[in-house]
Amino acid sequence: MKKPSHQRQRLKTLREKLADLPCDTLWITQPENRRYLSGFRAQDSQPNESSGSLLINRTRHVLVTDSRYTLEAEREAADFRVITVKGGLLEGLPRIIQDLGTERLGFEPEHVTWGLHRNLSKKLRGLSGRVRLTPINGLVEEMREIKDPSEITSMKKAATLMSAILDEIIKDMAPGHREREIAWRIERLVREAGAEGLAFPSIVASGPNGALPHAVPTSRRVRAGEPIVLDVGLKINGYCCDMTRTVFLGRPRKKFREIYRVVRRAQLAALREVRPGVESTLPDSVARGTIREAGYGDYFGHSLGHGVGLATHEGPRLAPEKPVKLREGMVVTVEPGIYVPGLGGVRLEEMVVVGKRGPRILTVNDHFYDF
Amino acid sequence: MKKPSHQRQRLKTLREKLADLPCDTLWITQPENRRYLSGFRAQDSQPNESSGSLLINRTRHVLVTDSRYTLEAEREAADFRVITVKGGLLEGLPRIIQDLGTERLGFEPEHVTWGLHRNLSKKLRGLSGRVRLTPINGLVEEMREIKDPSEITSMKKAATLMSAILDEIIKDMAPGHREREIAWRIERLVREAGAEGLAFPSIVASGPNGALPHAVPTSRRVRAGEPIVLDVGLKINGYCCDMTRTVFLGRPRKKFREIYRVVRRAQLAALREVRPGVESTLPDSVARGTIREAGYGDYFGHSLGHGVGLATHEGPRLAPEKPVKLREGMVVTVEPGIYVPGLGGVRLEEMVVVGKRGPRILTVNDHFYDF
Repeated sequence: MKKPSHQRQRLKTLREKLADLPCDTLWITQPENRRYLSGFRAQDSQPNESSGSLLINRTRHVLVTDSRYTLEAEREAADFRVITVKGGLLEGLPRIIQDLGTERLGFEPEHVTWGLHRNLSKKLRGLSGRVRLTPINGLVEEMREIKDPSEITSMKKAATLMSAILDEIIKDMAPGHREREIAWRIERLVREAGAEGLAFPSIVASGPNGALPHAVPTSRRVRAGEPIVLDVGLKINGYCCDMTRTVFLGRPRKKFREIYRVVRRAQLAALREVRPGVESTLPDSVARGTIREAGYGDYFGHSLGHGVGLATHEGPRLAPEKPVKLREGMVVTVEPGIYVPGLGGVRLEEMVVVGKRGPRILTVNDHFYDF
Repeated sequence: MKKPSHQRQRLKTLREKLADLPCDTLWITQPENRRYLSGFRAQDSQPNESSGSLLINRTRHVLVTDSRYTLEAEREAADFRVITVKGGLLEGLPRIIQDLGTERLGFEPEHVTWGLHRNLSKKLRGLSGRVRLTPINGLVEEMREIKDPSEITSMKKAATLMSAILDEIIKDMAPGHREREIAWRIERLVREAGAEGLAFPSIVASGPNGALPHAVPTSRRVRAGEPIVLDVGLKINGYCCDMTRTVFLGRPRKKFREIYRVVRRAQLAALREVRPGVESTLPDSVARGTIREAGYGDYFGHSLGHGVGLATHEGPRLAPEKPVKLREGMVVTVEPGIYVPGLGGVRLEEMVVVGKRGPRILTVNDHFYDF
């Protein structure tokens, strides 16, 4: 568990931003944002079953939850006052909002349902003072893009463990093993090593299945010579690792040796451009250019990478559009791929910190081929 | 996978309901509703990363997804026309809605975020015809409350497998084992038996931890004589099982023998009232009455049970409030409990079908004590 001081620093930063926003209180419902600001680790069991939310204004910060989570919240969100509501969030929230003296409540538009917004609006109309709801988009997400040293430490731990497990998996893989069995073995090793769990369902995609960037493991048996894409991740202290290797059991045919070389070249070229001050579109265009020049431009359909942190997918995106400046302390993936329908795919993914002097690769599994 | 005929019957029923609704097209975004109507099994990887949604009007039904899921959708949702959109749902949806001739689009207010609703509204304003968005609440959820025979078959399979695994777990449990290890062993057996996965994170709550109805497994070692609550579930064909046993390693002291007897008596009394035509509040009040008369009224804080199906928690609720009539084919849990803070809890949960002549218990694990 994180020491409270990180959360205090984050609250301070949030309050500085609050001064410039069209609201006096923020209502945080997004689970990773909630954890980031408070330390409260609970997950939401179903999207419509929240384990709690935060209310933060200039001077006060409270965590609103129900009796199932009170003890956990008090232990983990040590800086927050924990308020336990009965009969559902909607029953308790208006009173708490009133007690905070809220006039304008900022909410997260992508993490509040239309129905909850409507019902809360109705309840708030019943209060004596007037409270208005104002959408505030991506505020905490933007803070989360820059990692502090304690976050990098957790991500390094996650990447080191994942890399070691992937080593073991690759060592033991043999023709005839089923994709699903390999995926389950990855999960078992991850859980038994004491990680919080997988960061996302593992991709084990062999032969033609590898042509789908988001393939789900099947009962197909892996074969010698074909590319096998392993895209895996785990969580430690809430922080995700995300990495991909493509492996061959036995020497692949010429076509895939070439494809592999191109992907690896694209990856290395892109990695060199991951520096503070660079536009997020640059590494993407460098990788895309390498792949295009090699004649595979039509076979790289997705963007180059994405931010990683408390969520597997977060900002910034490394994509052909919407440039943002890369900043020191961001953590992104660099994952070019070439996908040939019906034949297979090759994807290579590293997770890197945008360091002062260049990229610092967190993933330490050196399973690359030198064809 | 389900045969298409179930989905066709469900679409027919949905269309009959559509005739009476203030919309001509339904937009289905809730993952279990989507699976129920189409057979599409994909899950949403993050709440804001949908794997697809359905559009259904009087004559047409389409599944809108992106390229990651096209193949899977075409295979699983065989009755649906699959449309793959590029650049995000918001880019593709307006055109498809226009092509369907939609004037009033019914959406699921608890499964569309405020932000998505606003952005889609804006896009729709750009169309030539006028399209209005109308919230339609709980329509498919209500259909899902009554299970057809194929659904009962899946739930029976899930319950039988879960019961057998729980047998094995209980047989092997010994003082000194940690809650977390036991929970992980349950998950391993579930996954290795070929189930789709856990229906929810297992509860293994020993001694004082059992006093929390929703305890998360800890590193505590279970001890002889104390109550150990095991609340577990798995999924087969998408359908959940949910069951609870409380076990003792060695003879418990008198207090807990008495509490156990009371809970079991309350459960059996409530089960007798699970019949078609009965108000959903009746089984709850019968169980609650039994517990109150025994002097433990203050120690049973939650409701008696809930519907189960594609989701672990769905309608109808068996609770003290909001009575609805139980109907043949509903599947509900009956799970009274007594929780003594600091000491421990006893909960017993069966999953039962509301049968024509009375309850049909699906859970087949007879691990009950006859103190």
